[in-house]
Amino acid sequence: MTDLLSIILAAGEGTRMRSALPKVLHPVAGLPIVGHVARAARAAGSNQVALVTGPRHGAIRDVVSALDPDVVHFEQAEARGTGHAASMARDLFKDAQGYIAVVYGDHPLLRGHNFRAVLDRLDAGLDVAILGFEPADPTGYGRFITDGERLLAIREHKDASEDERRIGLCNACILAFRAEVFRDLIDKIDTNNAQGEYYLTDLVDLANAAGKKVGYGLAPENDVMGVNDRRQLARAEKLFQQVRRDDFMQAGVTLRDPDSTWFSWDTEIGKDVTIFPNVVFGPGVRIADNVEIRAFCDIEDAVIGTGATIGPFARIRGGAELGPDVHLGNFVEVKKSRIGAGTKAGHLSYLGDAEIGTKTNIGAGTITCNYDGVNKDKTIIGDNAFIGSHTSLVAPVSIGDGAYTASGSVITEDVPADAVAFGRARQENKQGYAPKLKERALAKKAAKGK
Amino acid sequence: MTDLLSIILAAGEGTRMRSALPKVLHPVAGLPIVGHVARAARAAGSNQVALVTGPRHGAIRDVVSALDPDVVHFEQAEARGTGHAASMARDLFKDAQGYIAVVYGDHPLLRGHNFRAVLDRLDAGLDVAILGFEPADPTGYGRFITDGERLLAIREHKDASEDERRIGLCNACILAFRAEVFRDLIDKIDTNNAQGEYYLTDLVDLANAAGKKVGYGLAPENDVMGVNDRRQLARAEKLFQQVRRDDFMQAGVTLRDPDSTWFSWDTEIGKDVTIFPNVVFGPGVRIADNVEIRAFCDIEDAVIGTGATIGPFARIRGGAELGPDVHLGNFVEVKKSRIGAGTKAGHLSYLGDAEIGTKTNIGAGTITCNYDGVNKDKTIIGDNAFIGSHTSLVAPVSIGDGAYTASGSVITEDVPADAVAFGRARQENKQGYAPKLKERALAKKAAKGK
Amino acid sequence: MTDLLSIILAAGEGTRMRSALPKVLHPVAGLPIVGHVARAARAAGSNQVALVTGPRHGAIRDVVSALDPDVVHFEQAEARGTGHAASMARDLFKDAQGYIAVVYGDHPLLRGHNFRAVLDRLDAGLDVAILGFEPADPTGYGRFITDGERLLAIREHKDASEDERRIGLCNACILAFRAEVFRDLIDKIDTNNAQGEYYLTDLVDLANAAGKKVGYGLAPENDVMGVNDRRQLARAEKLFQQVRRDDFMQAGVTLRDPDSTWFSWDTEIGKDVTIFPNVVFGPGVRIADNVEIRAFCDIEDAVIGTGATIGPFARIRGGAELGPDVHLGNFVEVKKSRIGAGTKAGHLSYLGDAEIGTKTNIGAGTITCNYDGVNKDKTIIGDNAFIGSHTSLVAPVSIGDGAYTASGSVITEDVPADAVAFGRARQENKQGYAPKLKERALAKKAAKGK
Repeated sequence: MTDLLSIILAAGEGTRMRSALPKVLHPVAGLPIVGHVARAARAAGSNQVALVTGPRHGAIRDVVSALDPDVVHFEQAEARGTGHAASMARDLFKDAQGYIAVVYGDHPLLRGHNFRAVLDRLDAGLDVAILGFEPADPTGYGRFITDGERLLAIREHKDASEDERRIGLCNACILAFRAEVFRDLIDKIDTNNAQGEYYLTDLVDLANAAGKKVGYGLAPENDVMGVNDRRQLARAEKLFQQVRRDDFMQAGVTLRDPDSTWFSWDTEIGKDVTIFPNVVFGPGVRIADNVEIRAFCDIEDAVIGTGATIGPFARIRGGAELGPDVHLGNFVEVKKSRIGAGTKAGHLSYLGDAEIGTKTNIGAGTITCNYDGVNKDKTIIGDNAFIGSHTSLVAPVSIGDGAYTASGSVITEDVPADAVAFGRARQENKQGYAPKLKERALAKKAAKGK
Repeated sequence: MTDLLSIILAAGEGTRMRSALPKVLHPVAGLPIVGHVARAARAAGSNQVALVTGPRHGAIRDVVSALDPDVVHFEQAEARGTGHAASMARDLFKDAQGYIAVVYGDHPLLRGHNFRAVLDRLDAGLDVAILGFEPADPTGYGRFITDGERLLAIREHKDASEDERRIGLCNACILAFRAEVFRDLIDKIDTNNAQGEYYLTDLVDLANAAGKKVGYGLAPENDVMGVNDRRQLARAEKLFQQVRRDDFMQAGVTLRDPDSTWFSWDTEIGKDVTIFPNVVFGPGVRIADNVEIRAFCDIEDAVIGTGATIGPFARIRGGAELGPDVHLGNFVEVKKSRIGAGTKAGHLSYLGDAEIGTKTNIGAGTITCNYDGVNKDKTIIGDNAFIGSHTSLVAPVSIGDGAYTASGSVITEDVPADAVAFGRARQENKQGYAPKLKERALAKKAAKGK
Repeated sequence: MTDLLSIILAAGEGTRMRSALPKVLHPVAGLPIVGHVARAARAAGSNQVALVTGPRHGAIRDVVSALDPDVVHFEQAEARGTGHAASMARDLFKDAQGYIAVVYGDHPLLRGHNFRAVLDRLDAGLDVAILGFEPADPTGYGRFITDGERLLAIREHKDASEDERRIGLCNACILAFRAEVFRDLIDKIDTNNAQGEYYLTDLVDLANAAGKKVGYGLAPENDVMGVNDRRQLARAEKLFQQVRRDDFMQAGVTLRDPDSTWFSWDTEIGKDVTIFPNVVFGPGVRIADNVEIRAFCDIEDAVIGTGATIGPFARIRGGAELGPDVHLGNFVEVKKSRIGAGTKAGHLSYLGDAEIGTKTNIGAGTITCNYDGVNKDKTIIGDNAFIGSHTSLVAPVSIGDGAYTASGSVITEDVPADAVAFGRARQENKQGYAPKLKERALAKKAAKGK
């Protein structure tokens, strides 16, 4: 494939977000907006990616570097327009071969095929290709002035005549160039406009003036929506989810209520999985075949094995690994634990930093007491063990294969295989004492009332 | 009413579902698709129902027999078309009186009135009546070639001329016949078509050729949607729910957010019931008047008495019976238990296999330890009892009327009426010891760090 | 501002609600319908508000008086029409100065600006101004017969001619008058109509006949929807929520799924707050900046400090006050408690009637045993304390600064600062005893089977 340098512009302030967080770091499906753009650039075959951010945007650089360490960062110290921003990446584009694509960093639904729509035009012989789309309402967008397949100019909405405003074909968010053409023209952009800024879209005029072949590619409107405020952020999230839901259903996943199933950008799900209403996935979830996830589950950073049944009301996180046929029931939290095949934890339990074997039964109300205020310690439970209801497992502690803890026990020491551990007080009944307790409580109430 | 034999065709493979489960067994509102069709057939007055399934469809037969034991099963060993499939039911139709309706088994929103729309035409003198509908987009559907009220033929989309494709009236999913007409014609269907299959719809041509009176009835588009993939399954679920939600609201149920209230096909709800957002019902729920169900509840197989208040975050199942004015609060699970009038369980409790009297208070964090790894045992609690918070009730165990368990107790033996049971250790304070514990924990951490 | 008397009509029976609760008491966003109307009337500058209810409507009077004690109540003993109802408020309007607005009490989305739309017309010199709107489907509404800006009459749908039924401008729900005009005309309404009732809308004819200047103002359709059944109630709720969601997003709140975020009419939220899908707010919630509320939370009557992180699966209520940077995790309920800065309660806990200091750790499964069957007692916990997992805190009880409770302890007595409290039994292991327990359980099962 032809070499491709993608320059992502993310220097804008995004004030309409009304946020201390830079706009492009707001997440869509758990991934920052700019992360979606960087992934799309890579998917399109970018061997180099440049990111241009503003002077207070160290956070963007940190986040993007964590996602894609090979991205090269440039700072635009002053807000002097998109043309100026793109020129910041000079150290990379001065020697670039092949193609250069400049893309706006606030378009979370961009995918590799949107880049391909313009790169394919370069492959077909054009010198410059701009991504266009036909919005339902073109108000505010730059219009494409065309002559057949040729793109003559991009007219900003406010500069457009009545006739030009009737044009439905508008500028989207990717401008692609042969590298040498971009290099020749980028410094010819001037600031002769109302804003006194360097406009990247002037490259279309300049390229035409230089006799270059300029055209365009097309994208569906939903793919190229930009995010400028939180309503658009919510809309981007919704559009992203709709695509994922459709893909999963197509592939053999039942979503009883697609609209209330919220995937992360990286969720992986096997076949014949059924998901009930109201399930939310955070990043890092892989689910095998034949799993059933009932209503009201919150799952992130977890691997779930074939045939597992989860929820309702389950919460899984922190690198949890559930083996085949595990059952987690209601009001159960699993954090950073490995749970073996066929083990069940049905009710009101917290399993944190645990390693649990196969076919073990975790009684209702079991809690791993994994934190001493400083350290997180491990609870190890073997195969075929039986943890009685309301057991407190004070970590570090280990319960052997086939061992049994009596209901209501506090387990502070290891329990050998096949042993039964008791850690509870003996019961004593005080006959006829309840009415006295009641009287005392009533007297107390009366005293309070005075 | 005239005798009616309904023949349900369910022999298709449903490969677009991408599922190991046969298509017609996928549930809509908790009932398999084919179960909806069988119920509709009965509601229309079918005294006999035949089900034709494929060779690997034992599961369908089992499920349908459990729902409706009188359904008679037939196997279509080879996929040779719908006409061939219908002919498999010969043992039933050879002696059938009255009417015969052939219906596709993958139409979960069919109801009795859709059958009536064609049966009424037979009552009015027709020999054959086919159910039609006017889809928003007729592409792909067989078109009705009509002459006034007469139905001349059903033209498959791919065989239709340009003009015929403009016809909006299309073939739905029920074909109804006078029994003797069906019997006379069914064996005359041939395989002279592109697919080399026996088409049931050829009966329209054959009936006309034999001088029979052939017409049609009509159905709303939503009633006759077929399910072929999981997106259509999700859509069928949504349409089903919309009807139920509207019906309940019309009848005097407040749904604060109808779109997030998910009923089962058999849910029953009384008057002046209020349901908050995000409530999911499984099969087998009956709710009396004046009940309030707060957000995030999951309820199946349960009877809930007048004036009860449930949730938020409650889970009820397994044949639970709640009396009048019961209160279940957050993170409370009730399974296979009877709870008497006015009893409250407000927080973080598991009540399984319990029988609880009236006006009893179940403290926060109460757990019935009902499982010994093999048996499920009962917990019996009387009237006006007070179960202190964090009580473990180790079944089988019984707590008498007016008895009291001290908070944090493990109750392993019966508590007589009016007695107070203690089953907890005495507290001991070690003065000034906390900083030492902290030091020790920090040292441990430091050691780990090395 | 000109004096304004608003007369709210709420005497209707609302039978289509099929409810024992009067129609106008059904809540929208947690506030009774009539409460929304009363608030709108006040927002428009009403210095006097009259409420006309029916003979069995004491509950309406009680609810409205609690919301707005200065509302003056009148009873319409017999259902003799809206004109008759408005005349019940004679004691107020007989001396009223300025303007009188009569408004229907079943319009929960009315706001002050809807009143202004007609009051502004009075300010501009009209004697009578009626609120109109242009419904998508005008069927059933009274049509405005106009001559330019003059309103000549309001024609009821059933009395309208074919031509008049084509009029799109319809009667909404507010009629505004100069006080003296209203007073002069109200008793001239007669019952010469099909229903034999006094129609308030006859005032338009009467005013025109008396040579008064009669015109109209306009409202968006959504603002003036009336609620007559529970489907309309659900629709009003949805419309209300959409406005609130948009407002919050505009102001800098991220709603990952706006459609599943349910606000109360009085919810207040700061900047850079993120709300995950499925969060339900009851009345009385104030949330400071930078708070994150994860999925599946139910929050009412609570103040949440800057930087707090809540949920998933948290329930907060009863006047809870959470300080800055508090963390509440899954399956945690907080009721009527104050929690200091930086304190964490991550899992499966109930904190009721508690006062907790700063930087304290509440272990998983901690329960405040705050109820003795009669009294609710307090649990006091200091700063930097460590409550071990599965601790029962039997109130009244106090835990000092820096104190520590051992996991699984039942704490019945105060714990001094820096002390460690143990309240649990010592563990004992019975070697090799588990297989015997299992055998016994199996034998029991076998015996049952007999």
